[in-house]
Amino acid sequence: MKLEETKLSSTEIFDGVAIHLFKDEILLPNGNKGVREVIRHPGAVCVIPITEDGDVIFVNQFRYAFNKVTLEIPAGKLEKGEDHLEAALRELSEETGLSAKNVVPMGELYTTPALIDEVIYMYLATDLTEGEQHLDEDEFINTIKIPLTKAVEMVMNGEIRDSKTQIMILKADKYLNNK
Amino acid sequence: MKLEETKLSSTEIFDGVAIHLFKDEILLPNGNKGVREVIRHPGAVCVIPITEDGDVIFVNQFRYAFNKVTLEIPAGKLEKGEDHLEAALRELSEETGLSAKNVVPMGELYTTPALIDEVIYMYLATDLTEGEQHLDEDEFINTIKIPLTKAVEMVMNGEIRDSKTQIMILKADKYLNNK
Repeated sequence: MKLEETKLSSTEIFDGVAIHLFKDEILLPNGNKGVREVIRHPGAVCVIPITEDGDVIFVNQFRYAFNKVTLEIPAGKLEKGEDHLEAALRELSEETGLSAKNVVPMGELYTTPALIDEVIYMYLATDLTEGEQHLDEDEFINTIKIPLTKAVEMVMNGEIRDSKTQIMILKADKYLNNK
Repeated sequence: MKLEETKLSSTEIFDGVAIHLFKDEILLPNGNKGVREVIRHPGAVCVIPITEDGDVIFVNQFRYAFNKVTLEIPAGKLEKGEDHLEAALRELSEETGLSAKNVVPMGELYTTPALIDEVIYMYLATDLTEGEQHLDEDEFINTIKIPLTKAVEMVMNGEIRDSKTQIMILKADKYLNNK
């Protein structure tokens, strides 16, 4: 079955702080016309920091969309033209104060391919040195330390819900234990 | 550190086919005012179907946001008032023609908590019976069979990028091999 869609026209609907929304007219594989609403995103990075003792440093952050605090790994949007690895180290430092001597790329993830073109570049950080968290004035994040083995259980029993966090806990566990 | 934010007001920006966007004024934990752009979503289900021989039935689908075909597990939006498990079986049947005698809930995932309140309810389906795919007129999906062991490698080496698909491959592998 032919799957490809072709763009016919694109209309900007909203250019916000976080969300840049377009409504595009498209041609479907069967020749019918259709509409795609799509959010264009600059991309992001996430990093799972793991200590020598096998603890993961997580962040607790209020997520307005869910009206609650979630447990996630450090992450953030790419700045314009920023190198992915540098962005990962910057977000790690800002949100947790940590710096890392060893950082391994762990692939990419698409958060919501039906709606957003966001790609998150994933990293595993070890050989960590502690430092001071340095958040923006209007950014509020607590750090929390949980053993990787316990974090794996929390993914399996459904306690950890953020998608990048679930992926990186399972990938890091597999990567470190297969080494 | 206090993390909670409070809604002051909400304005509907766009009520589309797939995207329902709001711009809310909020009170930050430090007393400053802020803005949150948030997409309200009805929720979704995904299901990883695994055959007796240990093969995963994936779907190939064109994702307009990325202008390419992606490899994903069957998934779709909840219909109004629909039971999650029924939705998972409906999407499985529509996209692959499969029915399943054994379906296990595998937790929830938040796709993009910074922007969307979407929750995906995840299921593992086994004891499968083949049938006819029945797509909407303007829906285009091919199925593809890959051994679970190979799919795990494809997550680890970065070939599979969709977030729900990465999570469910790793969770299903861990669940089935720890049994």
